Amino acid sequence: MFTKEDNEKLCRVGAGTAMGDAFRSMWMPFLLPEELPEADCPPIRVRLLGEDLIAFRDSRGQIGLLDRYCPHRRVDLFYGRNEECGLRCVYHGWKFDTTGAIVDMPTEPDNTQMKQDTRIKSYPVMEWGGVIWAYMGPLETMPATPPELEWGLVPADYRFITKRLQRTNYAQGVEGGIDSSHVGILHSHLDSENPHRPFRERQISPNLSIPYLASDTAPKFFIRPTNYGMAIGARRNAGEEEYYWRVTQFLAPFYTMIAPLKEDRAYMGHAWVPIDNENCWVFTMTWNSDRPLSQEELDHGAVHSDVMNDGSYRPLVSADNDYGIDRVRQRLHSSTGIDGIGMQDTAVQESMGPIVDRSLENLGSGDAAIVGFRRSLLKMAEQRAKTGRLDVADHPEWYRVRSTAALLAHGADFYAGTASLTKVEAGAGREE
Amino acid sequence: MFTKEDNEKLCRVGAGTAMGDAFRSMWMPFLLPEELPEADCPPIRVRLLGEDLIAFRDSRGQIGLLDRYCPHRRVDLFYGRNEECGLRCVYHGWKFDTTGAIVDMPTEPDNTQMKQDTRIKSYPVMEWGGVIWAYMGPLETMPATPPELEWGLVPADYRFITKRLQRTNYAQGVEGGIDSSHVGILHSHLDSENPHRPFRERQISPNLSIPYLASDTAPKFFIRPTNYGMAIGARRNAGEEEYYWRVTQFLAPFYTMIAPLKEDRAYMGHAWVPIDNENCWVFTMTWNSDRPLSQEELDHGAVHSDVMNDGSYRPLVSADNDYGIDRVRQRLHSSTGIDGIGMQDTAVQESMGPIVDRSLENLGSGDAAIVGFRRSLLKMAEQRAKTGRLDVADHPEWYRVRSTAALLAHGADFYAGTASLTKVEAGAGREE
Amino acid sequence: MFTKEDNEKLCRVGAGTAMGDAFRSMWMPFLLPEELPEADCPPIRVRLLGEDLIAFRDSRGQIGLLDRYCPHRRVDLFYGRNEECGLRCVYHGWKFDTTGAIVDMPTEPDNTQMKQDTRIKSYPVMEWGGVIWAYMGPLETMPATPPELEWGLVPADYRFITKRLQRTNYAQGVEGGIDSSHVGILHSHLDSENPHRPFRERQISPNLSIPYLASDTAPKFFIRPTNYGMAIGARRNAGEEEYYWRVTQFLAPFYTMIAPLKEDRAYMGHAWVPIDNENCWVFTMTWNSDRPLSQEELDHGAVHSDVMNDGSYRPLVSADNDYGIDRVRQRLHSSTGIDGIGMQDTAVQESMGPIVDRSLENLGSGDAAIVGFRRSLLKMAEQRAKTGRLDVADHPEWYRVRSTAALLAHGADFYAGTASLTKVEAGAGREE
Repeated sequence: MFTKEDNEKLCRVGAGTAMGDAFRSMWMPFLLPEELPEADCPPIRVRLLGEDLIAFRDSRGQIGLLDRYCPHRRVDLFYGRNEECGLRCVYHGWKFDTTGAIVDMPTEPDNTQMKQDTRIKSYPVMEWGGVIWAYMGPLETMPATPPELEWGLVPADYRFITKRLQRTNYAQGVEGGIDSSHVGILHSHLDSENPHRPFRERQISPNLSIPYLASDTAPKFFIRPTNYGMAIGARRNAGEEEYYWRVTQFLAPFYTMIAPLKEDRAYMGHAWVPIDNENCWVFTMTWNSDRPLSQEELDHGAVHSDVMNDGSYRPLVSADNDYGIDRVRQRLHSSTGIDGIGMQDTAVQESMGPIVDRSLENLGSGDAAIVGFRRSLLKMAEQRAKTGRLDVADHPEWYRVRSTAALLAHGADFYAGTASLTKVEAGAGREE
Repeated sequence: MFTKEDNEKLCRVGAGTAMGDAFRSMWMPFLLPEELPEADCPPIRVRLLGEDLIAFRDSRGQIGLLDRYCPHRRVDLFYGRNEECGLRCVYHGWKFDTTGAIVDMPTEPDNTQMKQDTRIKSYPVMEWGGVIWAYMGPLETMPATPPELEWGLVPADYRFITKRLQRTNYAQGVEGGIDSSHVGILHSHLDSENPHRPFRERQISPNLSIPYLASDTAPKFFIRPTNYGMAIGARRNAGEEEYYWRVTQFLAPFYTMIAPLKEDRAYMGHAWVPIDNENCWVFTMTWNSDRPLSQEELDHGAVHSDVMNDGSYRPLVSADNDYGIDRVRQRLHSSTGIDGIGMQDTAVQESMGPIVDRSLENLGSGDAAIVGFRRSLLKMAEQRAKTGRLDVADHPEWYRVRSTAALLAHGADFYAGTASLTKVEAGAGREE
Repeated sequence: MFTKEDNEKLCRVGAGTAMGDAFRSMWMPFLLPEELPEADCPPIRVRLLGEDLIAFRDSRGQIGLLDRYCPHRRVDLFYGRNEECGLRCVYHGWKFDTTGAIVDMPTEPDNTQMKQDTRIKSYPVMEWGGVIWAYMGPLETMPATPPELEWGLVPADYRFITKRLQRTNYAQGVEGGIDSSHVGILHSHLDSENPHRPFRERQISPNLSIPYLASDTAPKFFIRPTNYGMAIGARRNAGEEEYYWRVTQFLAPFYTMIAPLKEDRAYMGHAWVPIDNENCWVFTMTWNSDRPLSQEELDHGAVHSDVMNDGSYRPLVSADNDYGIDRVRQRLHSSTGIDGIGMQDTAVQESMGPIVDRSLENLGSGDAAIVGFRRSLLKMAEQRAKTGRLDVADHPEWYRVRSTAALLAHGADFYAGTASLTKVEAGAGREE
């Protein structure tokens, strides 16, 4: 059983918490470049790991990430004026550069020592791989680069990245991302002629046309701890001599990759970035390793970005309107009556409440990946607490792996059997 | 004086509280049949005695009342699919029947023992007397039937039942229901030619045309404890030799009946059912004992159901819009300037706050019924705490009483004098 | 440094707090006469120093200020009927006069002793100087009059008074009112041809055309404690032989006056009246000492009253819509991109949160007035706690002072040098 204490440890991300300190040891994606589109554009509010911050792009294009409140009189820098290589508080005109240095203090004498003595909290920021990253930990342990996830390494037109708000703790999102067993249920389509047909005879979404997913709704899960996190093998029956394996990757602390859902489909991955204990950003990455995305692949990737056009990245449907559930469609066409795979996931994950009480769960054999994820993250937090470092932060190259699907002969080990496809030599799978 | 401690005891209804445990010893009305209109209709959210639940009607027409959250991963069963004699969680497809047994678990092997070992909290449900009832207590003390209130015993077309949300503790509602002394004040109409005419010369609502109510605004109250709760006699002057008596019934734990307001008017009763400590459902029953309701009686009963047409049963006016108070009408036409007797009651009761601090009251001789109600309910809770049982739960037949109004000679005892009308032999009035 | 404890003491205004008790020793403005426009008009809700009250004007025109809740059953008297020299609770008809006496109790016998024995909390109210004042302290120390501020002494057509809600503690408002150093920054206009021109070369608002304000953005501040509070001299460079002085007055506990912003401009003052710990009313007074206000002066005064027309006095823009910030205007036309001097002030003050944590500030030489204000008010609270009295409450005549602006020769003392204009002999400036 997962205790209430473990649950607290897994879910709390504030400064000084075990998990919060571990997260602060790594670069984290937090903005899309479109949010700070050009030099001297308006600053935007950022909340990350429970801290209220302000981000701005200065006249040279550099990005700053500062405390949300001016150190003088605590005015919100959202109202600040982004001008001439610095963000200026409108109240008394104190001006900060992207490093947090105070470069002007017009209400004080020109020679004031205060300008040197006062600073504002600031965090390093990096643009890499199509997203903007922050590092919120001690400078002495700052990794040189973010984790080298494949979507970050390919050319810009090989990838497509969206972002949306989810009103849950990050861990609920990750758990959804690695939970292969729900796919044939939550996302199943119905035959309206015979809506009560058993799950195993159903189609998943027309976009997810893989017969084995639905025909075996109780896959057997195999967990392989790795240096970067965990490889999850979901084994489904596929005839007399073979199994159909789907290998999902979990990469610490909050990245997931799922195998393509069509033979020639782009890869897909997520990052579940903690805004605070009760909210997270869901970044969804669609990418090819060796060619630009096709229009069809772009369209499919865009499914995950059906969000408010006001900079909030809130989905159009939400708990406020029961995710637009349509009970007639639920009766005749789909398990949920909710449109869109992403929203189906969000609906169930948010419906648990912002931080589900894991001590009340009843986990089965289909939940092995979830158990593995929790164990893996608690271990990571423990390493950080004991040593002040994280192995995964020091080895960005471990992240150069993929997810895949494959038919393997009965008796074959999924990890070894798919290694040429998953490229796990990068992640150096380890024995527990 | 009613202490803060007594107030807590009277108002808290959660599991494990004195009053909450007493309420859990009886069947309670909580839904109208229209809320679950047909087999396999959408499940609906229920909150009752502070517990979050889900109600559904299965393919055979049976009603289930389950924990709101799936025992597997705590997904909200509101999003569940009601299908083939069970409610199925959409996430991993666990399916529950109306008894709370798990009848399918598609993500686990067919022979899993988990299916037998896991249950979901479920409560017995009964359809009776035009409403749907729940029993939330220990099965070994479950009464065979709900209290046999007359509106539940008559044919369906003899009664009319509505429901609305009130944003107060249930006790504030009951206290309004048995408070005969406010009728001539709160509900009084003004003579617009002479709006400052004293209360005793005013008409009550044109629908409440009983002269004695207004002409004696300070009735004297007589309380008679009974087995089922309490009979309240309100005595008003009515000439040289007689008094006009109105007998109001309080039936534990939250039922009230008031005497008809016209000679040939249908009976009227209420049930104030605790949603949680700060909200209650107000069920309003209008019925005849011996004939179908007339159109006029139906129209009058419908006055109490002026609610949102979205399944929420929220009244159209509320504290958010000051109950639509019209100050010109208040000056010229009615005491309150608020439309509708039900909304006048709700406005004053909600305006006290969700749980009024009774230790700050200044009660007078007009408040005897209220004092009696509180004493009666605290006693009931005490019996439940000491013995694990409730007399009123074991004697549904005690509830076969009525309210009435009558002229009695000076000196006559109201309880004995109206017994043939109130049929209190059923309730076996007892001496304190 | 200002400690968290000092901050609590400065900002808490409830009954029994040090500052709350001090405030309760003085008359406080709380309503505009337009809110109770005529005899027997609707009662209005009042929240003052954290207490929920109801105000009404009776048939004779007298104003009552009573506990919001009826002492009988705690019904909200907002729903009361204002009739025949009293406010009547609609539930059971108890009726109160402006002194808090119960003048009718229709549900009790005529000769009941309860009528004499029961009272409702009531506070003295006075109409004076164009506003309505309350006194919420012990009657034995009630001052005969409010502070004799000049705007209260002139004829009605010499003054113009508006009111708006600010969602901060009162002290944040006062600190904005006496903070002369922000004027040349927050309120500065830009030259759209050259928007990055330094502050000292900018125009302030076209309405604030005083060249010295902008040309010296780092004035030197001189604080002079006085009997009524504090005179603040802001010294700016103005040529070879003179300084330009602006004298701002702070008058305990929450009044400010700023020097006219044009030669022939009316005086302006504010009162920041605590609604509760997290909200205040901002009264803005515009007045002439010797003639009626001109249309231009009235128009300028009205700038501060751009509020909801629904009796709430909420500004049309607020944190909910980022104060209508226009980033293009912020780039090209004004420091903030927010319309209106009053809203610019409100935006920065509210953006600090309702009670800013002053222990996190970094104050400079430009913040001397703010430091002086805090010290002055904490002293006042201390006097009240030790002696039960306040000097400022006993000397309304101390408030007969003005703010002013003047050129003085280098070396001149601002307080003495402007005394004939500020009339500070009234306030009897004292040495610390």
